[in-house]
Amino acid sequence: MKNPIGLFDSGVGGLTVAREIMRQLPNEDLVYFGDTARVPYGSKSKNTVLKYSRQIVRFLQTKNVKAIVVACNTASALALDEIAEEIEIPIIGVVKPGAKMAVETTKTGNVGIIGTESTIKSGIYNDYIRELNSDITVVSKACPLFVPLVEEGLLEDRVTEDIVGRYLQEMKEYKVDALVLGCTHYPLIRNTIKRFMGDEVCLVNPAFETAKSLKELLMEQQLLNVNKHKPEYEYYVSDGVDKFISFADSVLPFHVLDTKVVDIESY
Amino acid sequence: MKNPIGLFDSGVGGLTVAREIMRQLPNEDLVYFGDTARVPYGSKSKNTVLKYSRQIVRFLQTKNVKAIVVACNTASALALDEIAEEIEIPIIGVVKPGAKMAVETTKTGNVGIIGTESTIKSGIYNDYIRELNSDITVVSKACPLFVPLVEEGLLEDRVTEDIVGRYLQEMKEYKVDALVLGCTHYPLIRNTIKRFMGDEVCLVNPAFETAKSLKELLMEQQLLNVNKHKPEYEYYVSDGVDKFISFADSVLPFHVLDTKVVDIESY
Repeated sequence: MKNPIGLFDSGVGGLTVAREIMRQLPNEDLVYFGDTARVPYGSKSKNTVLKYSRQIVRFLQTKNVKAIVVACNTASALALDEIAEEIEIPIIGVVKPGAKMAVETTKTGNVGIIGTESTIKSGIYNDYIRELNSDITVVSKACPLFVPLVEEGLLEDRVTEDIVGRYLQEMKEYKVDALVLGCTHYPLIRNTIKRFMGDEVCLVNPAFETAKSLKELLMEQQLLNVNKHKPEYEYYVSDGVDKFISFADSVLPFHVLDTKVVDIESY
Repeated sequence: MKNPIGLFDSGVGGLTVAREIMRQLPNEDLVYFGDTARVPYGSKSKNTVLKYSRQIVRFLQTKNVKAIVVACNTASALALDEIAEEIEIPIIGVVKPGAKMAVETTKTGNVGIIGTESTIKSGIYNDYIRELNSDITVVSKACPLFVPLVEEGLLEDRVTEDIVGRYLQEMKEYKVDALVLGCTHYPLIRNTIKRFMGDEVCLVNPAFETAKSLKELLMEQQLLNVNKHKPEYEYYVSDGVDKFISFADSVLPFHVLDTKVVDIESY
C-alpha cells in the first residue's frame, strides 16, 4: 500500500524513531508531526495529552496515512489505548515494543524504566512487563532533568554525570540488567548512562524495537509498500521551523529542506 | 472600581508577581490564569506566544477585569505591545518595571539581564534600558536550565551552583552591578545567584517593581479599589490543578482551596 505512515511526537525527539523506521522500512513514505508549540508532554495530565494527541491524529488522517506511530513515550503511555479504539487504521506506540525487549533481555529479572514524570506515573511500562512475565521486578524512575540537559547540549558533562548518578543510583542497588530508555531524548545521553550503569547493563532503546514492530504489523495487515522507490518524507510542526530543522540535521543522515507549520489547535 | 485585576503567566511562576500585588494592593480582587497545559513559553516563537496570550486575555475579559498584568517575562517581551493596542483596558508587563529599576540601581552603568531564550532573543530589556539611558551597557544571557532546576527543587545544590557559575561568568567579567532576574522562577534561586555574583551586585526582581507600577497606573486612571474589604482571589489553569495548588502553597502565605481548569484553546 502506497500511503504514507504517520508519526508524531511532542516535539523533535521522535525523529530518533523516524530514523529507525527509515532504516528498517526504506520503501515507506513518512509524514512526521512534532508538537513543538506545546512541548513537553512529560509533565502534563492524561486529559491534556489525550486531547493534543487526538488533534494530531486528526491532522495525520488528512494526509491519508495508512498507520500511525506514536513516537512519544508520554503520549504512548497516556493516549494510545483510547485512540486505538477511535480510529480505523492501526496505531502503535513505543512503550509496548520497549517493554517486550526488556523482558526478552533481562537475565536477573530486574528491569529498570526511566522516563518523564507522566510516563512513570502512568505505570504503563510496569503493566506491560508484568503482563508478559509477572516474575519480573520493575524499578521505575522519572528523570525530569534529562530532557533539558540534552536540549542544552550537555551530553557529556560533569553536571549530566552528576544528575545521572542521582537518578540511577537506585537502579544499581536493585541490580537491574535491562534499562529501558523510556523517552526519545534519552538515547542521546546513552554514553553517560552506560558509564554509570556499567557494561553488564543493557540499555533498551524503544525506537529500534518500535520500527521492528511496525514492520511486522504492516506485513501482517498487508500494508507494506512492496514497490521499491525513493521514499518521500514530509515534516510538520506547530511552532519554530528553524529549531526543528537544526535538531533534525543532528539526528537524520540528510538535510531536511522543507518543514511546514500547522495550526494544530484547529484540528 | 470594584472589578478584579487579571493576571496571567505561562504557568505557576507568575504567582510570585501575584504575591507582590496582594501585598502592595490589599484591597484588590485578583483573577489568576496559569497556562499549565502549554508551559513553558520561554522557548517558543513570537507568533505562538502572541496567540496563546490573546486567548488568555479573551478569557480574562470574560471575568470583567479592569486591568491586566502579564506576569510572564516571555509574554511581556513577545506579546504585550500588540495586545495593548487591541484592548480597551490597561495592560502592563514585568519587563518595563524591571528595566526601569535596573537603570535606577546601576552605578557602574553595566546592567545584566537573565531570562528565557525567547525573552533574551527579543532584546526587549535592552531596548527599554537604552530608551531610558543610552549610556548603559547591557549584558544579556539566556539561562534555559534554571527553570527545570527550580522545578526539580534543586534550589541550593552543587549542580545549580555549577550551572549558575557557567551562565553568569560573563556578567562578572563585565562587572555588572545590577542583574535583572528576568523570569519569574529565578527569584527562587536568588541565594545561589547572589553567592556567585557577590554582595555588591543588586538582584532586581521585576515582581516587586511591577506591583508598584500597577498601583501607580490604577491611581492615575482612578481604577483603584478605595473601599477596604477582604479581597477575593480566583485561580484558573489549563491543566493540572493539584500541581498548581502544591506550588501555590509554597509561594502564597495561605492555602489555595479552589482552582478551576479552563479549556483555553476555545477562547
